[in-house]
Amino acid sequence: MQIPQPYLLFLGDVTDPLSAKTAQGIHQWRPDVCVGQIRLTDETVTLGLDDLSLQEAKARGAKTLMIGTANAGGYIPASWVNTLEEALKLGFNIASGMHQRLTDFPSLKELAKKHQCQLFDVRHYDESLDVGNGIPREGKRLLAVGTDCSVGKMYTTLALEKEMNQQGIKAKFCATGQTGILITGSGISIDAVVADFISGSVERISPAFYDHEWDVIEGQGSLFNPSYAGVSLGLLHGAQADALVLCHEVGRQHIRHLPHMPIPAIHDILNANLQAAKLTNPNAQWVGICLNTSAISEQEALELCHQWSSEYRLPVTDPVRFGVSSIVDKLHLI
Amino acid sequence: MQIPQPYLLFLGDVTDPLSAKTAQGIHQWRPDVCVGQIRLTDETVTLGLDDLSLQEAKARGAKTLMIGTANAGGYIPASWVNTLEEALKLGFNIASGMHQRLTDFPSLKELAKKHQCQLFDVRHYDESLDVGNGIPREGKRLLAVGTDCSVGKMYTTLALEKEMNQQGIKAKFCATGQTGILITGSGISIDAVVADFISGSVERISPAFYDHEWDVIEGQGSLFNPSYAGVSLGLLHGAQADALVLCHEVGRQHIRHLPHMPIPAIHDILNANLQAAKLTNPNAQWVGICLNTSAISEQEALELCHQWSSEYRLPVTDPVRFGVSSIVDKLHLI
Repeated sequence: MQIPQPYLLFLGDVTDPLSAKTAQGIHQWRPDVCVGQIRLTDETVTLGLDDLSLQEAKARGAKTLMIGTANAGGYIPASWVNTLEEALKLGFNIASGMHQRLTDFPSLKELAKKHQCQLFDVRHYDESLDVGNGIPREGKRLLAVGTDCSVGKMYTTLALEKEMNQQGIKAKFCATGQTGILITGSGISIDAVVADFISGSVERISPAFYDHEWDVIEGQGSLFNPSYAGVSLGLLHGAQADALVLCHEVGRQHIRHLPHMPIPAIHDILNANLQAAKLTNPNAQWVGICLNTSAISEQEALELCHQWSSEYRLPVTDPVRFGVSSIVDKLHLI
Repeated sequence: MQIPQPYLLFLGDVTDPLSAKTAQGIHQWRPDVCVGQIRLTDETVTLGLDDLSLQEAKARGAKTLMIGTANAGGYIPASWVNTLEEALKLGFNIASGMHQRLTDFPSLKELAKKHQCQLFDVRHYDESLDVGNGIPREGKRLLAVGTDCSVGKMYTTLALEKEMNQQGIKAKFCATGQTGILITGSGISIDAVVADFISGSVERISPAFYDHEWDVIEGQGSLFNPSYAGVSLGLLHGAQADALVLCHEVGRQHIRHLPHMPIPAIHDILNANLQAAKLTNPNAQWVGICLNTSAISEQEALELCHQWSSEYRLPVTDPVRFGVSSIVDKLHLI
């Protein structure tokens, strides 16, 4: 599965910038594949890209209309359907990370068939998978793991991919969630596969490779989040990581949405993840910690990174504030 | 979901006793719900139950035709369909643990609708689930965990349920795999749910209860099987077990189907499972080890159980050879 590029970013009629995080992510990490944006109202959030009609975007070479917004229910509003239908008539593919499927709309399904376009519902994965086998495969792999959900794992891995390539280490980001898939154009939402195939789906996302040096695999969840830990363990086993990076949000007191579940001690989290990773790669090692320090001042963040760095004997940084070069420096030695 | 009882056990035309393990399991553990068996040929394996026609079984009160066989592809042979259709016409429900769905046959779907019968494809779970939340819930729970797949977890938990009830501890077996579901008539195949819902499905299978003392939850896979460990971890978190029983097959050298993956040291397996279980139940404890000793003599098995018992300071038994009363004795104290 590879979503044809470049994209026209569809922002619908959302007015809350947080709801356009997917589009912002694509624009931030893959600016070269964005030919412009399309907004249904003047109040709709803007990414600062050129506002294009479907026809203009087509003329500029756009191949896929990318739904770059999210809403609470994950549904596709009726007010969007007309634009989506017009896009298919012009030959656009459409990609979506919404829970509701594009293919659930008979008109979109028919038009896609008629105009030979593809509909990508990346939150779902319908192709058949094999169970994981844990057999070592060619290539080096880095995996981000978290103290919880939503602590910056996708940002960290995309920042690492960029910094590695800038430092001359050929790296490829491997997406495991819908936003990452829309950014990179390929991947599998591993939390949406049948439970038996979690590690197998990661083996599929990052197979043996010879044409670059590192796969940088997006993490999901946490071994200590009782809702999703199974996904995180299957990901650790499937990734066969040579290098692990821990992601943590400073100030988070408990597992997201679960006030009765405290975040465990960092030492325990480091030990448990390394132990699990070693099942399929005995050489797995920690190479750094990435903190989301948005809750504290830059000076406090700098001090915290120094303090953690001496405590855990690892490079510790905030990727947004301080970049990830200190971690990439370590990768040259692996 | 509750499969209506009693059952007529359908053995099709299988001649290999191993292929009729599901039917044997139902007959062994729930003899009171089996009114008889139906075989398509004289060569078909027998359970020693009365051979009944559909009409005779109906007259004896059978409510569900239970497909009690398995084959490599998990498909329903064309040669069975006529009998299944006749059963629906007589008002039987049909239950199957095959991979291929009964509902994939239009004729079965139509007849079921027409005659108001239910088709149970227990390997699949189509109802909506919630993600797990790890909130403590009423009732005591025992979970079997394994050093690998297929080491006797279902047998162990069914044997424990029986022995507990015999010793006056009101216990209820909770099925997490298709054979267990067919035996008990309810449950969820947790390896078939979407990955995000593993622990949530276990919270559904064993909700808060007040009408008995223990839920005895069937285990799946192993934390150290790189194909399926995600399922096992979600099961540990969802089960909130007060008591854990480890199951192991004596003589197994490596993880099933994966000769490059050795079985880890028992101490490591005990530690890793207990640590994971404590995330959602800090009082989790080991209460015993069940060995499948079929590869060695009874005398050797007895000696091995004594040896392990003093090494791990737990009751150690082979449920088939020596029963599980030594483990149940410990449960009186929890």
